Amino acid sequence: MKFTKMHGLGNDFVVCHRKEPLSLDVFELARKVCDRHLGVGADGLVFIQPSEQADFAMRIINADGTEAEQCGNAVRCVAKYYYDRISGARRELTVETKAGLQKVWMEEDKEGAAMVRVDMGPPVLEGRKVPTVLDKDMVVDEPVTVEDTTFHFTAVSMGNPHAVIFVEDAVQFPVENWGPRLETHSLFPNKTNVEFVTVHSPHELDMRVWERGVGQTMACGTGACASLVAAVLTGKAERRATVHLKGGDLQIEWNEEDGHVYMIGPAVTVFEGEWAL
Amino acid sequence: MKFTKMHGLGNDFVVCHRKEPLSLDVFELARKVCDRHLGVGADGLVFIQPSEQADFAMRIINADGTEAEQCGNAVRCVAKYYYDRISGARRELTVETKAGLQKVWMEEDKEGAAMVRVDMGPPVLEGRKVPTVLDKDMVVDEPVTVEDTTFHFTAVSMGNPHAVIFVEDAVQFPVENWGPRLETHSLFPNKTNVEFVTVHSPHELDMRVWERGVGQTMACGTGACASLVAAVLTGKAERRATVHLKGGDLQIEWNEEDGHVYMIGPAVTVFEGEWAL
Repeated sequence: MKFTKMHGLGNDFVVCHRKEPLSLDVFELARKVCDRHLGVGADGLVFIQPSEQADFAMRIINADGTEAEQCGNAVRCVAKYYYDRISGARRELTVETKAGLQKVWMEEDKEGAAMVRVDMGPPVLEGRKVPTVLDKDMVVDEPVTVEDTTFHFTAVSMGNPHAVIFVEDAVQFPVENWGPRLETHSLFPNKTNVEFVTVHSPHELDMRVWERGVGQTMACGTGACASLVAAVLTGKAERRATVHLKGGDLQIEWNEEDGHVYMIGPAVTVFEGEWAL
Repeated sequence: MKFTKMHGLGNDFVVCHRKEPLSLDVFELARKVCDRHLGVGADGLVFIQPSEQADFAMRIINADGTEAEQCGNAVRCVAKYYYDRISGARRELTVETKAGLQKVWMEEDKEGAAMVRVDMGPPVLEGRKVPTVLDKDMVVDEPVTVEDTTFHFTAVSMGNPHAVIFVEDAVQFPVENWGPRLETHSLFPNKTNVEFVTVHSPHELDMRVWERGVGQTMACGTGACASLVAAVLTGKAERRATVHLKGGDLQIEWNEEDGHVYMIGPAVTVFEGEWAL
């Protein structure tokens, strides 16, 4: 099985282009391939497959063998893959994901690295739909208490739930300590991703993220989108800003006209490989 | 740059066969290639190069950009590589390493996986030569005290220094707690690798290892050799035994005739790749 190893802000994937689906257990395959010592090593195995509704379909199997609905870092990688090898320099592409159709644009393309713009759709703000247990149209700056510490969070779904908390210094914040306790707080019936954010100016945010079921990661595209939305809702930022993550920068825009959130970020080809099935 | 990803008991390497040395900074290249998110991901970058004294020469650059003198897991991998592609089914090979010439034999070869026997040379037992600060011909069952706990260790060099400590249950032993304090104890002028070993029978040992400058690892070939030597010196084992490591098993023999230690263990091909230089 030929593959291309790619990454977006350090979130790394084994990308496979298949015209026919594999006739073997892809969940088991993903666990093997993603093992960092005995396999190729990656956060996920991503298949590019034919689609009837879009240019192509993307399927992401996480390293633990579960299937992901969506992943902002992965979609940038597959867009670059398709642009480099298949689309014939067409810059606007539509990708079918488990969470629906997604539009992407190649903004820039240098050797091996590209900047890709992704339409992440509109944020969902209604309390029950994020979901939280709160019956409110929007959950903005609500208190959440863990032991005797109270934080204030804004709840945003970008297809997956986020609780955004503004703190004085996101970079130094003890994410490993508070992340897991907030993730599993009773306010969040499906658990939640947690973002710790510092707004430096209306156009510049620092963010650290605790990903639901994963832990602290280098980057989370939907988390960066949720953070900008929360910063706009609380009057801290404009609708277009750079979000600095551990793994690098994302440009996020919450478009006023269509209400969608757009993300621009890098996609990098690391190497080509072949795995014996 | 074409490469083959291989591993021995989970200790993994990017193996490169070069007729001409690379004209770039291989230390910098190793750091990039070995990065587990932004590169191929490996414990080391290993070059197979021409040699005037042996079938081929092996050069190992660790993930941190330092050069290793020797590595029992890597030498099995390069032996399998050379046997599969170059030697024309000749089973006895000689490898030039920074630590000298090393003999290896292909014992078994199934698809992708092989068992390789390696002559690890004679152990060095003289206290000052291991090195320890002790002026003794052999350092067997000597006390070493950390805070108010006293362990007994046997010092063995297999080209690198080892302190072997017999414990009641190596598998459950808190290696992360005691390993770093023993590694840097003043008895060991060049620091030391530390093995925690339980002898189940004269032919079966459990071993856990704290590697000098690295931490706990899945497997350490020279550590398994040192452990058997220490077990023989203390009358706990015969000269031939299976050593169970976290990453799998090694067969170790301390040969009575030539005084050399022989190690038999697996080498596995994971995948083929190409990295753009």
